[in-house]
Amino acid sequence: MRAALYGGPGDITLGERPDPQIREPGDAIVRVVLGCVCGSDLWYYRGESPHALGPIGHEFIGVVEEAGAGVRNVKKGDLVVAPFTFCDGTCANCLAGWPSNCLHGGSFGNHGVDGGQGEAVRVPFAGATLVPVPGHGHSAETLASLLALSDVMCTGHHAAVSGGVKRGDTVAVVGDGAVGLCAVIAARRLGAERVISLSRNPARQALAREFGATDIVPERGDDATAKILDMTGGIGVDAALECVGTGQSMATAFSIARVGSVVGAIGAPHDVQVPIDTVIFRNIGLRGGVAPVRRYIPELLPDVLAGTINPGRVFDYATGLAGIAGAYTAMNERRAIKALLRIGAL
Amino acid sequence: MRAALYGGPGDITLGERPDPQIREPGDAIVRVVLGCVCGSDLWYYRGESPHALGPIGHEFIGVVEEAGAGVRNVKKGDLVVAPFTFCDGTCANCLAGWPSNCLHGGSFGNHGVDGGQGEAVRVPFAGATLVPVPGHGHSAETLASLLALSDVMCTGHHAAVSGGVKRGDTVAVVGDGAVGLCAVIAARRLGAERVISLSRNPARQALAREFGATDIVPERGDDATAKILDMTGGIGVDAALECVGTGQSMATAFSIARVGSVVGAIGAPHDVQVPIDTVIFRNIGLRGGVAPVRRYIPELLPDVLAGTINPGRVFDYATGLAGIAGAYTAMNERRAIKALLRIGAL
Repeated sequence: MRAALYGGPGDITLGERPDPQIREPGDAIVRVVLGCVCGSDLWYYRGESPHALGPIGHEFIGVVEEAGAGVRNVKKGDLVVAPFTFCDGTCANCLAGWPSNCLHGGSFGNHGVDGGQGEAVRVPFAGATLVPVPGHGHSAETLASLLALSDVMCTGHHAAVSGGVKRGDTVAVVGDGAVGLCAVIAARRLGAERVISLSRNPARQALAREFGATDIVPERGDDATAKILDMTGGIGVDAALECVGTGQSMATAFSIARVGSVVGAIGAPHDVQVPIDTVIFRNIGLRGGVAPVRRYIPELLPDVLAGTINPGRVFDYATGLAGIAGAYTAMNERRAIKALLRIGAL
Repeated sequence: MRAALYGGPGDITLGERPDPQIREPGDAIVRVVLGCVCGSDLWYYRGESPHALGPIGHEFIGVVEEAGAGVRNVKKGDLVVAPFTFCDGTCANCLAGWPSNCLHGGSFGNHGVDGGQGEAVRVPFAGATLVPVPGHGHSAETLASLLALSDVMCTGHHAAVSGGVKRGDTVAVVGDGAVGLCAVIAARRLGAERVISLSRNPARQALAREFGATDIVPERGDDATAKILDMTGGIGVDAALECVGTGQSMATAFSIARVGSVVGAIGAPHDVQVPIDTVIFRNIGLRGGVAPVRRYIPELLPDVLAGTINPGRVFDYATGLAGIAGAYTAMNERRAIKALLRIGAL
């Protein structure tokens, strides 16, 4: 089969991989329909994080081509959303609601499993991992939003849930990447009345508005803090959502969070210091992390199918597998918010 | 009046201060009955944190001697518990439940207000700050436990609340100071089934057991982590309560916390790094800080009066104001868990 392959920093090519095969009774083989490139893929693309050479990509939707003898919940022919990690559904962490921290799990395009930027994937613990999508004849827009459930929409939701967003809140989203934009959707969906998006990019500002942001703050650093404190009577926001993962974004999130609130953080951390004095002396908490996507998909899926939320709008670039190198380049140069890969037929 | 005075690191003396006077209609003058020395007093005693020279001490119970014309809720003759900070009860932070972060508040023995280690204190916003104690003829034991409500018991409770302790939980308390010991009480009170106290001091171990600790771990650092992970099937505890405020204690708390849990932290931080990779990749949150004591006192007071909890047991040293220097020395040398000061008659 054809699949994108990582050859080292800056080196993404289309190559060949053996067709995946069932190895365990709980495995399923999924033929990938849509995949995409994640902001976190850029870390190894830029050489800033390690990644094994070979298959890549952790987000995809597809059709079950073959299910092992032990697979329940999904069957051949089902359209499925894959969370970006597989999980057994039975370990202590899964049972506690943290499937992305499954004791026997891993992420796609890693841990000996093919990636979503290829034509097919062997999915371990397929019954516990995959979420079947009801209905038929979904539009291209709906399919794109289903794909967003495999990571970015659920991750934005995790930021909002971690930050304790509730009805009537004023929320600030630090970061205008795909996840930050999805956090705007999530905050509004959880009842936030005012959502401030920190963005200086016109296309992203427009999408934030479309997703429900009521205010846009293009400033950064101390200027952003001053502006948001001014907008909130000097008190700060009810929840600050950190959707970048840098030292500056974390500092900004803590500086605009009101006393007693929680910073919801999902950015993979790169050189981040948590301002512990602010935690302790202003009672501002920190929660978040790798989103428990498998737990959130069933909650968000009905809203995607009903068209109430449209996270697939974050895909502003589309290509086929042959265009994989260009997809990475476009995202790395911030010409694209998020690149969709049309890989197989429904 | 007589009051303890701070003259610089290591220099605590009994001296004279002008009798406090009503300045604002909301003020009350409280004659101090019991005061004490806090672990956090040792920071400036050791020269590790700044403190203005002059009156000190932020914990006391006493009797209202005079109430300004605008004071509601408390009146002359009332026995009252003072939270360690005063608060107006009307600002945005107070209304949100964070009185210790009152926009117009401050702590006793600071901010132009006398301290609890003296014979009398002017209490600003007395109606919002002080909590009257019902009943008469309270025993010495009850009075000591009422005094504990002014800080350590409520602070231990804040660690447990911040860590999300719930019925049936396994909880680890890092730190065997007065607050850590009170966190044991709080965790049990909130329904924890198993409470592991990290302590290597026999007297503190005994008190932890008396307060409801089911297990004692005398190890520190990596050895403590290994032991507690072994005790919890490799999964970690449902809540780790950080009651010290050093880099090692924070690291230990994060290393024994299970995926998805929250570290409840109340230690004033000294050279603490939050392990952000653990936050993000194991979904372990961090909450806590300066306890909203004024909010918690009404919740804990009935249990103190009923004798259900006895946090006053942390006082294992008692003296009068004349013995103030010795009280600091005893705590600084860890010969006392917490030193009580018998200052005035009831």
